[in-house]
Formats: sequence, C-alpha cells, structure tokens
Amino acid sequence: MARVVVNVALKPEILDPQGRAVQGALGRLGLIGVSDVRQGKQFIIELDGALEGERAELLHKLAGELLSNPVIEDFTLTVEN
Amino acid sequence: MARVVVNVALKPEILDPQGRAVQGALGRLGLIGVSDVRQGKQFIIELDGALEGERAELLHKLAGELLSNPVIEDFTLTVEN
Repeated sequence: MARVVVNVALKPEILDPQGRAVQGALGRLGLIGVSDVRQGKQFIIELDGALEGERAELLHKLAGELLSNPVIEDFTLTVEN
Repeated sequence: MARVVVNVALKPEILDPQGRAVQGALGRLGLIGVSDVRQGKQFIIELDGALEGERAELLHKLAGELLSNPVIEDFTLTVEN
C-alpha cells in the first residue's frame, strides 16, 4: 500500500480570487494580521503495492497533466510507501 | 510570520464523486492499482507575527466553521511559526 498526496496550488503570479475572499472573511470575523490566503486542491491517492519504476513516472506525469493545469498551477507530490 | 496550512477533506463515510471520477480517469490513463482517491481543499494562510493565544483559538474555530463544513468535512491545521 502506498499513499500519495498531491497538492495543487495556483502559481504565485496567478490571482486567487477564492483565496482573497477567504482572506476578507477571516478579517471580518475578527482574525487580524492575515497577509495572504491561497486556496488549492489536495488529492489523496491510495495505491496497491509500492509506488516505484514506471508507475511512479506515470503518476508524476498525470499529476502534472490531469490533476493540475500546468499553465496556471504547480503541484507537489508526496509518497508514503 | 506564521504560515498555516489547513487541509479540508470529506469525512470517510461521505461519498466523494470527484475523487471517484479522478480514480476512474487515472485507471483509464494507464495507472494500475488505484484503490481510492479522495479530493479535498487546502488553504495556505500567511499571518503577520506568530500564531498564539486567542488568535490561535479563533483560527481553529474558523477552520472548523468557515473553511470546512463540520457536517460533512474534517480538517487538519498545521502551523509553521
């Protein structure tokens, strides 16, 4: 069993209106000193067996092409074998 | 400066059709042995100063009430001061 966590976030130079809305709401609800909020997606993928070799390569490729939009998003991929 | 990461995921007993769709797509694209996919949200919150005391309590409260829906979602909150 491997557990893979893929975090997808907008690139820093891309405006994040959802994050901005959350930042405003946190401030209105009394949380002071919030300088930035970014909202992203998280995928938790459970795999049979360990992630290695060609399957690891394919998952990295799919994380960059299916799970994230490479034009506007970056991703990080963490494996817990 | 504190950086707070709030991960929000559907409770395990709640069906996740988005995750199921991703699981199907990964399989069709050749990734074998995917037993489960869950899709959640991630908020990255940048704060001025350290997170402590009442402000920490308020952020925990807001993570459970504003950033997540306590009826169907769980959250984890990680602070990097």
